Amino acid sequence: MQSELGLAMIGSGFMGRLHSLAFTILPSFYADLPRIRRRVIVDVSDAAASRGADAFGYDSSSTDWRAAIDRDDIDIVDIVTPNDSHREIAEYALSKGKHVICEKPIALTAAEAAEMARLAAQAKVVTMAAFNYRKCLAIKQAKKLVDEGAIGEPLTFRGLYLQDWAMPEGLPWSWRFGKAQAGSGSLGDIGSHALDLAVYLVGDISEVVSMTRTVVPSRPRPDAHAVFNPTAAASRANDMVPVDVDDCAMAMFRFRNGALGTLEATRFASGRKNYLDFELSGTKGSIAFNWERSTELLYCSASDRADVQGFRTIVTGPLQPGGENFWPIPGIGTAYIETQVTQLGDFVRAVRDGGSVETDFAHGSRIQEVMEAMLASAQDRRWHPVRGSASESRAA
Amino acid sequence: MQSELGLAMIGSGFMGRLHSLAFTILPSFYADLPRIRRRVIVDVSDAAASRGADAFGYDSSSTDWRAAIDRDDIDIVDIVTPNDSHREIAEYALSKGKHVICEKPIALTAAEAAEMARLAAQAKVVTMAAFNYRKCLAIKQAKKLVDEGAIGEPLTFRGLYLQDWAMPEGLPWSWRFGKAQAGSGSLGDIGSHALDLAVYLVGDISEVVSMTRTVVPSRPRPDAHAVFNPTAAASRANDMVPVDVDDCAMAMFRFRNGALGTLEATRFASGRKNYLDFELSGTKGSIAFNWERSTELLYCSASDRADVQGFRTIVTGPLQPGGENFWPIPGIGTAYIETQVTQLGDFVRAVRDGGSVETDFAHGSRIQEVMEAMLASAQDRRWHPVRGSASESRAA
Amino acid sequence: MQSELGLAMIGSGFMGRLHSLAFTILPSFYADLPRIRRRVIVDVSDAAASRGADAFGYDSSSTDWRAAIDRDDIDIVDIVTPNDSHREIAEYALSKGKHVICEKPIALTAAEAAEMARLAAQAKVVTMAAFNYRKCLAIKQAKKLVDEGAIGEPLTFRGLYLQDWAMPEGLPWSWRFGKAQAGSGSLGDIGSHALDLAVYLVGDISEVVSMTRTVVPSRPRPDAHAVFNPTAAASRANDMVPVDVDDCAMAMFRFRNGALGTLEATRFASGRKNYLDFELSGTKGSIAFNWERSTELLYCSASDRADVQGFRTIVTGPLQPGGENFWPIPGIGTAYIETQVTQLGDFVRAVRDGGSVETDFAHGSRIQEVMEAMLASAQDRRWHPVRGSASESRAA
Amino acid sequence: MQSELGLAMIGSGFMGRLHSLAFTILPSFYADLPRIRRRVIVDVSDAAASRGADAFGYDSSSTDWRAAIDRDDIDIVDIVTPNDSHREIAEYALSKGKHVICEKPIALTAAEAAEMARLAAQAKVVTMAAFNYRKCLAIKQAKKLVDEGAIGEPLTFRGLYLQDWAMPEGLPWSWRFGKAQAGSGSLGDIGSHALDLAVYLVGDISEVVSMTRTVVPSRPRPDAHAVFNPTAAASRANDMVPVDVDDCAMAMFRFRNGALGTLEATRFASGRKNYLDFELSGTKGSIAFNWERSTELLYCSASDRADVQGFRTIVTGPLQPGGENFWPIPGIGTAYIETQVTQLGDFVRAVRDGGSVETDFAHGSRIQEVMEAMLASAQDRRWHPVRGSASESRAA
Repeated sequence: MQSELGLAMIGSGFMGRLHSLAFTILPSFYADLPRIRRRVIVDVSDAAASRGADAFGYDSSSTDWRAAIDRDDIDIVDIVTPNDSHREIAEYALSKGKHVICEKPIALTAAEAAEMARLAAQAKVVTMAAFNYRKCLAIKQAKKLVDEGAIGEPLTFRGLYLQDWAMPEGLPWSWRFGKAQAGSGSLGDIGSHALDLAVYLVGDISEVVSMTRTVVPSRPRPDAHAVFNPTAAASRANDMVPVDVDDCAMAMFRFRNGALGTLEATRFASGRKNYLDFELSGTKGSIAFNWERSTELLYCSASDRADVQGFRTIVTGPLQPGGENFWPIPGIGTAYIETQVTQLGDFVRAVRDGGSVETDFAHGSRIQEVMEAMLASAQDRRWHPVRGSASESRAA
Repeated sequence: MQSELGLAMIGSGFMGRLHSLAFTILPSFYADLPRIRRRVIVDVSDAAASRGADAFGYDSSSTDWRAAIDRDDIDIVDIVTPNDSHREIAEYALSKGKHVICEKPIALTAAEAAEMARLAAQAKVVTMAAFNYRKCLAIKQAKKLVDEGAIGEPLTFRGLYLQDWAMPEGLPWSWRFGKAQAGSGSLGDIGSHALDLAVYLVGDISEVVSMTRTVVPSRPRPDAHAVFNPTAAASRANDMVPVDVDDCAMAMFRFRNGALGTLEATRFASGRKNYLDFELSGTKGSIAFNWERSTELLYCSASDRADVQGFRTIVTGPLQPGGENFWPIPGIGTAYIETQVTQLGDFVRAVRDGGSVETDFAHGSRIQEVMEAMLASAQDRRWHPVRGSASESRAA
Repeated sequence: MQSELGLAMIGSGFMGRLHSLAFTILPSFYADLPRIRRRVIVDVSDAAASRGADAFGYDSSSTDWRAAIDRDDIDIVDIVTPNDSHREIAEYALSKGKHVICEKPIALTAAEAAEMARLAAQAKVVTMAAFNYRKCLAIKQAKKLVDEGAIGEPLTFRGLYLQDWAMPEGLPWSWRFGKAQAGSGSLGDIGSHALDLAVYLVGDISEVVSMTRTVVPSRPRPDAHAVFNPTAAASRANDMVPVDVDDCAMAMFRFRNGALGTLEATRFASGRKNYLDFELSGTKGSIAFNWERSTELLYCSASDRADVQGFRTIVTGPLQPGGENFWPIPGIGTAYIETQVTQLGDFVRAVRDGGSVETDFAHGSRIQEVMEAMLASAQDRRWHPVRGSASESRAA
Repeated sequence: MQSELGLAMIGSGFMGRLHSLAFTILPSFYADLPRIRRRVIVDVSDAAASRGADAFGYDSSSTDWRAAIDRDDIDIVDIVTPNDSHREIAEYALSKGKHVICEKPIALTAAEAAEMARLAAQAKVVTMAAFNYRKCLAIKQAKKLVDEGAIGEPLTFRGLYLQDWAMPEGLPWSWRFGKAQAGSGSLGDIGSHALDLAVYLVGDISEVVSMTRTVVPSRPRPDAHAVFNPTAAASRANDMVPVDVDDCAMAMFRFRNGALGTLEATRFASGRKNYLDFELSGTKGSIAFNWERSTELLYCSASDRADVQGFRTIVTGPLQPGGENFWPIPGIGTAYIETQVTQLGDFVRAVRDGGSVETDFAHGSRIQEVMEAMLASAQDRRWHPVRGSASESRAA
């Protein structure tokens, strides 16, 4: 095993910062893993890249992501740019035999994602679509309960991801409002996390029907255009930029095992800030979760004595799977950083062991297929089968 | 104004008990209303009817509902029998010029309900489909906020009605599991209340898509067959009786005003007992409610100062619309009885004033149209328009 | 057994209304109990008394409570007047051999209450101090768990009763602000309920220390003086009336069994409406409750598997003790009325059977002793033993 | 300004790990602060110290804390050892002119703490008692509301810190159960945080009354004795070690401004894991908080329109004070790490600017005075004034 792995971070925004600091503190939690050397951080401008290098502890900065990937001392490429650049960078990194982490959604279309998954399989490297929320202790405990059979056969799943950041009047256009840059709107940005949880906890989705709505059809041109892909700048010509993605997306679906599911993703749910929420009901019990109270898992066992049966509020901590690596006291609170630490720890472990992670590009592609079927259904108002098969996916 | 109105209660089960005691205590809350004389209660057996008369304070009992309705001293007929007898009894009562209260759903099909609504319009009497939950103080406050414009234009509505009573293995068949008696399963039984709230708070529904599932396909023959319609007894021949209605029903829909909606109704949500829940998000705020905490309304105003914005938990009481008739202290708790008192008070007031109520048979028919479109969609997997038009409905 | 018992209601305010309607609907819930004939209702003015008789269904009204009690056809006297008249009326009723229900606190001082308890024991009738909150299904389930040993030995109890009705500026003086009429302020008015729960669930209190505060020292003279005792009218001379009772009361105490307790009662807790709340922690588990969510009991069992341990939210209904008499569906909600029905049902049953109720005058006296020790401690800043002994009390 | 400050971490346990990683990631959040060079980490054994150095990124390790402090390249000494060694190490560091961070409680007695505060004032360095919980975004928002006058004059404060880790039978003795090592039990360990919040939000405490209980009087001798102070090993002679501190502590107190307060700290509250909870009611509103839902602040404004008044659940994020340094989306969750980052950031800023922090040793001493008065009151059962005066304290 290499004692140190070289990292190139492509992007220095919020996610670049977050992934960087998670890599920085990995050794505090997983003493057995190889150390990650933060070698180079890339952004579109020298200023941004060099500011990132300084703040996040990289040896160097660059505006040339290809050159950064080419370096011999780079083992891992972490892609935290807007969605429309994911594919190009990831495929280049795969072609160079690098291990690749990519923010979700990994591509703009299912076809692109499938091609990425195919190239990843050829490259025999570790790939990861960064579905970090499933790494939360409460959700890992939920998965443990499902795997134990504690809730029996799954019957219904309801997934919500509600935010309200898009509501303020006059909020400028940004790349998350453009189909060319983002692929979809609330569906890909946040709904994809809820779908990831659906697949993780219940299994493959076989067919979907969907509807979407764009609440605000155009937005003021942003003063500064911070997207990675400079070609998008063309849209700055006018004062208002059209919003051509969904602000709200709703869907119903069937899982391959017969369970029924619903999905709601919106940026217009006043008062909901990061409300990633699910409830899974099975023949022997239920589990429920809400990210805004991410330290809690709700679990009801139908085998508890009837007069004292009810949802248990489990305050998570060291007793949950993976929790032993964090704080010794339950309820002290693990939140966002810890999910990043866990997923990057899983990734580095897979690199060390020549293994793979749960949310590899094949999984990312599978989620993309589901979303694409939903977008098609929102257009033609029909039920759509989800392409691909269980055997193609490493989901769950 | 008559100082006293004569009541015939058709059915002496749980709902018969509940409506009877609500009528009994009406004067404590509405001193201005005519008193209701509980003249006769009807059930299939002498024993049940006479037990009901004794326990609920009726002057007499009977097993002949036609004779009871025929009586000159009967002004109001209250139908609290299984769904398959609603239409016949209601139409008879209308033909005799009586005011009619009918439990929901008022009929087994939309065509039946539409015919009932037509006859009700002809009869020029007061009719009511007993959608009691909307009479809860929290929901009346929600309606007030919507009408004030406090949440702006509605964008999304999510309605849930989750129970788990059907889960225990070996639970015997009852009329709620039979299409002939109940029309539908969870959809009509509980989902109808969530749809009532959707229409009440947001407006007419224009189109729907749905899916349903029957989790347990057959159930043990019940030892005693307590349904009102004796022809159903034929199914007792075997030890297991098929369940031919939905245990779970999910739907998406569009409101006429463009808002998006989802519905989930299930009898298999372990740990959820009477979880009638909704969230309505609009352009200026949101409201949310859950019957299991029926004293609370959640309300978020997007115009609150940003750093102290959030859902307010309003503990309801005398300040909410209609609450001045109940307890002087907020939070003392109003629950199920109070909704019955309120809806029957509204009904008696309409009888007194020659007016009408919000949830008349036209409204009941409208809800039935929505449900029938959902059942059709669950069969043919297509979006279905909802027949009828806003002008036909007195909804909201 | 008499098939009917005659009732005299002394007071026609909120509590008179509430008790009256609970008596009215008793037969719906307890078919086996004697019926209660509402014979006479008493108030200070003819108008109030006769309005009460009409609204609540009494055969007659009166302004002479002694005459009403004297009547041969009166078996039960229900006292729902301000606190300062409780003793005189109750002692008169006892002297006439009537069964007596009295709102809490039953007296202004512990000595008065002890004398009432002594007279009650002599009279060999059924007496009841109306601590209705303990009749809530959630609290009855809590008691069942404690009695089963489910939480082991009690260690700590925290009781809160928080309201905010006294906060609005300019709120007029009423009898609840006067020591002569009310005995104490928040302590007796609401704190007494929390103390009742402490004694019910944990056992006798042996010593206390306390502090109190009067936030608003005087209040505007009320326009109409609605108190029962006309001598209080003297204070109307000036425009401001002094508040000589506690607005907030806090206490610590020790139970006889060694458990530690705290109490907080206040009328100045902004946002808390009827927040009667407790948490009881024992060596094997905990229970917690809040009246504002009165349909829920929280229960944590330390013997649940460690990784899925947590407070269970039990949604109460027919499975809880006494719940079989109410609605067939858990979570449908029982609230305030149901506690009144239950306590009055218990009372009538005791009358029928020649038994007694949990909260008889001896119990009421015991609670009064605790409160008096607290008021003394608030004065002299010392720990005070609670007079009397366990054997004198029928508590729990 | 120095561009880099040298750090000596004294202790490599949980807190050593936590503080170390907070220092490591400081630059991600506060680009303007000097960097912290992790120069040396100290523990009792070579193995522990060197493991810490490796895992947490220190240049060197040591078992000699005096030598570590003596080094010229050390600017900051961070003391995260058991309580009984705090004073000796802190006073040595002060004598060498180093800036000192010390875990709370900073000393075993009030006299010791006062002496430490005196030496700190002489030394003209930055000192900090590590009351990290107040750095939570929700609590900083609470402080902002209090300072704005949003809740008016404070009336009552209830502080709880409930855990249940001490409940399992057979749990071995550790230093937190010994008075010689810990000073007190639940009071100092966790109650001190609740007291810190009381003083922060309401102001100085003038007098207290208290009671305590030791639930389990002795505990099995631990197999390995991991405490820092080796003299404690003497107690290993027998198989059971006495517990001579409080398992539960309750107190009432008065603030200098007249507000009333209560405190409850326990290690025996089954189901409560890290339940640091407070409610502060004032003349114009209330705020409430619970660490187990640390992303939420509850706030009720008495000036909201009466029918839509209620506690707002504020989901915290970038709009709260200091939140702009963390994640861009509210509700993404800040928890334990973020409080450590904030408090260490505040400390480094004070070092840079020659300023001070809110929770300096004078503040730590003030909290110690309150606790000592409580422990004395638990012994002699009297109200105790809190020594010192507002002018001596920098609290709030």
